Amino acid sequence: MDHAARTELERVLRGAIRDIPDFPKPGIVFKDITPVLLDAPLFHRTTQAMAAPFAEDGITHVVGIESRGFILGAPIAQHLGAAFVPVRKPGKLPSLVERVQYALEYGLDALEVHRDALRGGNRVLIADDVLATGGTARAACEVIERLGARVVGCTFLMVLSFLPGAAALSGRRVETLITY
Amino acid sequence: MDHAARTELERVLRGAIRDIPDFPKPGIVFKDITPVLLDAPLFHRTTQAMAAPFAEDGITHVVGIESRGFILGAPIAQHLGAAFVPVRKPGKLPSLVERVQYALEYGLDALEVHRDALRGGNRVLIADDVLATGGTARAACEVIERLGARVVGCTFLMVLSFLPGAAALSGRRVETLITY
Repeated sequence: MDHAARTELERVLRGAIRDIPDFPKPGIVFKDITPVLLDAPLFHRTTQAMAAPFAEDGITHVVGIESRGFILGAPIAQHLGAAFVPVRKPGKLPSLVERVQYALEYGLDALEVHRDALRGGNRVLIADDVLATGGTARAACEVIERLGARVVGCTFLMVLSFLPGAAALSGRRVETLITY
Repeated sequence: MDHAARTELERVLRGAIRDIPDFPKPGIVFKDITPVLLDAPLFHRTTQAMAAPFAEDGITHVVGIESRGFILGAPIAQHLGAAFVPVRKPGKLPSLVERVQYALEYGLDALEVHRDALRGGNRVLIADDVLATGGTARAACEVIERLGARVVGCTFLMVLSFLPGAAALSGRRVETLITY
């Protein structure tokens, strides 16, 4: 995708993504991507553009983070000719899992991945809609690397630059279509 | 896809899908589709084959049911050149929603869809991994039709014929790649 096409896509995406005040709790302005999915050509261009920076990186697996990461990550995997691996909340995956815990503002959360989903030699791209504090993405990197696979990078539809996500993924390759 | 290719895909899928005994609770044998997603060409062929029966039906929107329906439904939407609409558990969608309740074996569950996601004139395909009792798919049909859209059909990777899913969707067009 050339520079002009990318600038035009960014403009259209900024027009489509809508702010929902006070969701999921008071004081938070949620960036709702569902209008992007509702525009069929835009949805397709968006996942293609999220995949494109990694087209020459030999990605073998795209990891999607539950649940919006599934909607973007599954088409990205198909654009790259890669497998798809879901990373899920605890108790959702049926076979043996590797679990990672991570800190939230208050308390802990956890993610799980099937132990037999990844191994040494695999080259992984992590996909999600938003990079905010980076806690979830960093935990996903950790659990993927514990299984011996390599995290080549992370691709997000948007990055919220007023939150410390970039610091949480410091030293890693991060691509985004929009920065707020 | 011709008959021979479809028979071959079915054979490969039956080999890939694995049984997980006693998940999510004792006595249930869970059909795990994650090995299908782990085989990149098979994942691509599977979503193409789930889309193919509806290629000439003017589908405008694919509705994916949280969460495995997202993994299959998002690529199916892109194969058909359709928009993608997530149907989610309560409290997950940020804007105004239409909610439908439905009976489980014990108690009630509910699904939500954004009210502005669908309207009269839309032609909808519902996508999910498994048709079991049909309660979820029937509830999705109901909430989609309440918004004025038409449910053209439902596409599943597999149907469990020993459960009453077909009866729950009686009179509707249902396509599946595998019947157990």
